[in-house]
Amino acid sequence: MGEAYVHGYQEREQERLLDQAAALVELLHHDSNYPAGSRVLEAGCGVGAQTVTLARRSPDASFTSVDISEELLAKARRRVDEAGLPNVQFRLADLFAPPFAAESFDHLFVCFVLEHLREPLRALRTLQSVLAPGGTITVIEGDHGSAYFHPDNAAAHAAIEALVTLQRASGGDALIGRRVYPLMVEAGISDVSVSPRQVYVDASRPELVDGFIKKTFTAMVEGVRDEAIRAGMIDAATFDAGVRALYRTAEPDGVFCYTFFKGVGWKSKR
Amino acid sequence: MGEAYVHGYQEREQERLLDQAAALVELLHHDSNYPAGSRVLEAGCGVGAQTVTLARRSPDASFTSVDISEELLAKARRRVDEAGLPNVQFRLADLFAPPFAAESFDHLFVCFVLEHLREPLRALRTLQSVLAPGGTITVIEGDHGSAYFHPDNAAAHAAIEALVTLQRASGGDALIGRRVYPLMVEAGISDVSVSPRQVYVDASRPELVDGFIKKTFTAMVEGVRDEAIRAGMIDAATFDAGVRALYRTAEPDGVFCYTFFKGVGWKSKR
Repeated sequence: MGEAYVHGYQEREQERLLDQAAALVELLHHDSNYPAGSRVLEAGCGVGAQTVTLARRSPDASFTSVDISEELLAKARRRVDEAGLPNVQFRLADLFAPPFAAESFDHLFVCFVLEHLREPLRALRTLQSVLAPGGTITVIEGDHGSAYFHPDNAAAHAAIEALVTLQRASGGDALIGRRVYPLMVEAGISDVSVSPRQVYVDASRPELVDGFIKKTFTAMVEGVRDEAIRAGMIDAATFDAGVRALYRTAEPDGVFCYTFFKGVGWKSKR
Repeated sequence: MGEAYVHGYQEREQERLLDQAAALVELLHHDSNYPAGSRVLEAGCGVGAQTVTLARRSPDASFTSVDISEELLAKARRRVDEAGLPNVQFRLADLFAPPFAAESFDHLFVCFVLEHLREPLRALRTLQSVLAPGGTITVIEGDHGSAYFHPDNAAAHAAIEALVTLQRASGGDALIGRRVYPLMVEAGISDVSVSPRQVYVDASRPELVDGFIKKTFTAMVEGVRDEAIRAGMIDAATFDAGVRALYRTAEPDGVFCYTFFKGVGWKSKR
């Protein structure tokens, strides 16, 4: 699994940028609120992009944010400290062996994590074991197959497909967004409700043109250029044409669509 | 243009089914409301699926619904009569030569029409000429490239692509949804705002499993089977496997996504 994690963490750096677009934070997190006194486990916090948003939105809830990398935890800790948020504890932990007693938490939050795992279902089941019955489980994932744009361009789709193939090769699934509902149901989570959060970008939304098309999505695709070419998944000319075509969608007559999926359900009271 | 119209009208029959799903009507039309006394032109009403919804939602507005086919107008008239809606007039008209004086209408409504036209831009410009300055222009279009699903399936995408190719061959654009913003802006419409309306279907939404996945989208794809195979765009085995895969997404662990785009803008007051 090491390889999958590394790949994931590289990508996760993009969340810093994603985090900067207020419209995106609103889209994903306007309903990410936890009651005063509740204990929330954030599984796979990475560099802490979501941690800051969560802890700020629910100042009277207590967050425990875990990750398998000391290095990333250090970055997350720094971000949370800089934001002056006192309600977060960090802990080194493997999602598949969480170092917590049963029912240690009231709520579970998992964002941009399952896409990197070979066994997302086992992760959800294992994490549920430290949750109290009746607690909520929130899962947020993107889906690179939800990206389409104007002008449409075959090379751009090929470059995105290379990213999807690389992520699959390292055990992940960049198309996991559409699977959030069946995964949560199969994990035994009750009353699952999934809502798509579509990022729609045209010239009337300049914050997203810059913050999402250019600095988040296209930058993420560009980030796998050498790896994808080296792996023989795509030739350099096609990849570069694809990246240019993605930037082209940020022009005044361009349009870009991408969808995140947010699922919420409950741990059964049995 | 004759051919494009014929193809369009065949497809437009699907709107009867689409019209039956209350959740879809709500998604597309919860904000399709016109003030008392206002004069609304519905351009390209087809069999009247949207007409009934519009006239019911705005009983004190006065609708003029036009189409180029007497046969379809007769069907639309029957539907509106059966619904007991007195606030609709029907008129035979070519969208490119509307038989109305300048400023005859306060608002313009165009739904599932531009996708079938060789010159959607000229249609929007021409239709604007019969609108009073300051009136609203509403455009709603689907985008077949916005369809993705779980389980993912290459044959299903190939079958959808055949439908897109057929529509292109007859002068239309089945991917026009993503172009609604640039088209409206280029047509000189002011303050254009486009909102995507994503149909997200999983087993928790049985109305849409039946009403959208099966009876609307997959039925529409199935409808072009013989034409697509005859045109050599796809072989029968692939097409049939694709249709089976689309029905497969309606199983309890399946997920289906499709997005409509609704644009609203104003005719400049100059």
